[in-house]
Amino acid sequence: MAEPVQESAGAPRLEADDDSVRVVWPEGHESRFLYYWLRENCHCSACTHPDAWERTLDFLAIPIDITPSSLTGDAAGLHIEWPAHEASCEGSFYSWAWLEAHRAEREARLARKRRPTSWQGDDFSKASVAVDYSKVMETDGGLLELLAHVENTGVALATGVPADEGAVLTLAQRIAFVEESHFGRYFQVESKPHAENLAYTPNALRPHNDLASRRYPPGIQFLHCLRNDVTGGDSVLVDAIACAEALRRTDDCAFEILANCQVTFASRSPDWHIVNRATIIDVDEDGDIVGTRLHPALLGPVDVEPDVQMDFYRAHRELLAIASSTEMQYRFRLEAGECQVFDNRRILHARSSYDPASGHRMLQGCYVCRDDFMSRLAVLRRKGREFREI
Amino acid sequence: MAEPVQESAGAPRLEADDDSVRVVWPEGHESRFLYYWLRENCHCSACTHPDAWERTLDFLAIPIDITPSSLTGDAAGLHIEWPAHEASCEGSFYSWAWLEAHRAEREARLARKRRPTSWQGDDFSKASVAVDYSKVMETDGGLLELLAHVENTGVALATGVPADEGAVLTLAQRIAFVEESHFGRYFQVESKPHAENLAYTPNALRPHNDLASRRYPPGIQFLHCLRNDVTGGDSVLVDAIACAEALRRTDDCAFEILANCQVTFASRSPDWHIVNRATIIDVDEDGDIVGTRLHPALLGPVDVEPDVQMDFYRAHRELLAIASSTEMQYRFRLEAGECQVFDNRRILHARSSYDPASGHRMLQGCYVCRDDFMSRLAVLRRKGREFREI
Repeated sequence: MAEPVQESAGAPRLEADDDSVRVVWPEGHESRFLYYWLRENCHCSACTHPDAWERTLDFLAIPIDITPSSLTGDAAGLHIEWPAHEASCEGSFYSWAWLEAHRAEREARLARKRRPTSWQGDDFSKASVAVDYSKVMETDGGLLELLAHVENTGVALATGVPADEGAVLTLAQRIAFVEESHFGRYFQVESKPHAENLAYTPNALRPHNDLASRRYPPGIQFLHCLRNDVTGGDSVLVDAIACAEALRRTDDCAFEILANCQVTFASRSPDWHIVNRATIIDVDEDGDIVGTRLHPALLGPVDVEPDVQMDFYRAHRELLAIASSTEMQYRFRLEAGECQVFDNRRILHARSSYDPASGHRMLQGCYVCRDDFMSRLAVLRRKGREFREI
Repeated sequence: MAEPVQESAGAPRLEADDDSVRVVWPEGHESRFLYYWLRENCHCSACTHPDAWERTLDFLAIPIDITPSSLTGDAAGLHIEWPAHEASCEGSFYSWAWLEAHRAEREARLARKRRPTSWQGDDFSKASVAVDYSKVMETDGGLLELLAHVENTGVALATGVPADEGAVLTLAQRIAFVEESHFGRYFQVESKPHAENLAYTPNALRPHNDLASRRYPPGIQFLHCLRNDVTGGDSVLVDAIACAEALRRTDDCAFEILANCQVTFASRSPDWHIVNRATIIDVDEDGDIVGTRLHPALLGPVDVEPDVQMDFYRAHRELLAIASSTEMQYRFRLEAGECQVFDNRRILHARSSYDPASGHRMLQGCYVCRDDFMSRLAVLRRKGREFREI
């Protein structure tokens, strides 16, 4: 194992261990980088393809106990040479900024994590997330503003959208390609005979996540209002994270059931048969609530053991009651020319019933994959920084 | 609670409890159906929309301790009347077949579950999963055969596909709409300068699941060969379920790490930034292995705690070594006019390097969502049975 060489007084201090190097940052905290980890993350053009920016290095060809032949810190970063049998590698360089951004310690990972702010009905308003359509279409700043609202609050509202058929696709494609589903590339929400979906009736729709029977329900939903002059037909938005947090506070056992017990969701028609099992509440590895799969109309038949079914039902009804409470709901009228854009994993949407004889209510909707939506936001935020350095 | 009425001697016996009815099937086994469960699954037109086949019933309006006012078994099934305050309900009927198909007991659910058969290289051959393209395009039987191969072994091979550009889309759309990704609606696999993906180089590709950095990697992959007369460029298929099973047998601790420890996968380019965390092995709630997310080129930087990183790396390398062993791999030459169709969650694919100066190798590929693929298979299997009765 080589002794580290410190070439620059202002750079982090290096301390070599048997299998790793500790970096003591100027602020005083330490990070440990395993030599194997460093070797695997070599970005020289023999180890990482410079255009594809994918690793070409063969993991199994690296000795798991590899140690550097030299290790040097200068003002820019850490330079490592590997033993001669690693012939193809041109030597590794890691900037301090890159190393700091990729510290593997759990607290560093948690500090990097973006956490959304949950909200209740009173905390929210259409105006607070509204962005003008022409600004979104014509400027990167306007687009970034729209996307950031969806990341933070789960919802944005584009205003001044032309009340034209297909305009929802134009807006969605400003962000990424359209995510198709068994209801098509886009869909028209209006009352019609022989509705293959409750949305296509004038009935009330209770708060739900769309297409909950899909293994991967669609990511970001766009609902564009072309016309709305009916009696009734108000829109409702609910933050599912806030609802699940409320349940966790008031009844932790119920929360645990919904976060751990998988149940079946099903959608059947003459043309499709989409059945999957999942939990009602989606919690990530750190215990953070990321969303729900709440859709009573598509739930079941519930196939949890009869002995625990009643516990499941009580928990499910508690969450439904929270999501249905006026406290949690933001109720508004979606006007012609407005398009609501929301994270379908996080935000429940609903509508009140309407009288189809009183006028017309016509929305058009589509989806964009969450990954491609978040990717667009990340690329906009780079603002000229080299993608290889992020 | 009403005493059950038995109208038909041949029908299952009914025994009423406080909160549920036990059905004693003619074969002797019993199933328990909670009254609440039965009420929730009422299929009368007031409770379930007859066209949309979605529940319109409001869960919160059902008393959780509901009991039937009458409960009658006849030759066809179970008839239930609910108390008068449940005014809108027209009364419930459940056929014995439907009840038996939806028993909630865990062993009943496990018995209904389709489990694929895992395979190693020697167990597999192109010929065993080959279906003629015209048979697939022109007959439901041919299509069903293709889809069933993918369900059972994870792979099918369409032969005699026209070696035309875009033919892969025609085949995919015979099944469902095309699942787009950040590489487009379809992609061309051939060597080119400034490749934005290792597949577009003549390099070897190690066994991998495609687009592993996506939160939901694409479902079913189609790879259609238009031309392949290069030296090298052989194709490889590996059953990831068999690999993960082998790891579980030989090193259960390594298996548990890969099934439980989430790591980051990243794909970055000037145009996208797709980063997600997931486990390497995907295990369902019953402990059944459903697939992997194995893609060393896109892995990391690995952000598990430095103290446990070496355990993670050892486990990952063990799985890579299994997937790279000749024992597990089926190696073949994908010829012009053949299209391999495979489950991207279950099947790892790879190719050997080739000499781009020796000829041409050109594939076109696309994806179809797994849900829509499985839906098509389920609908074909209905063979005229009413979807409401399934």
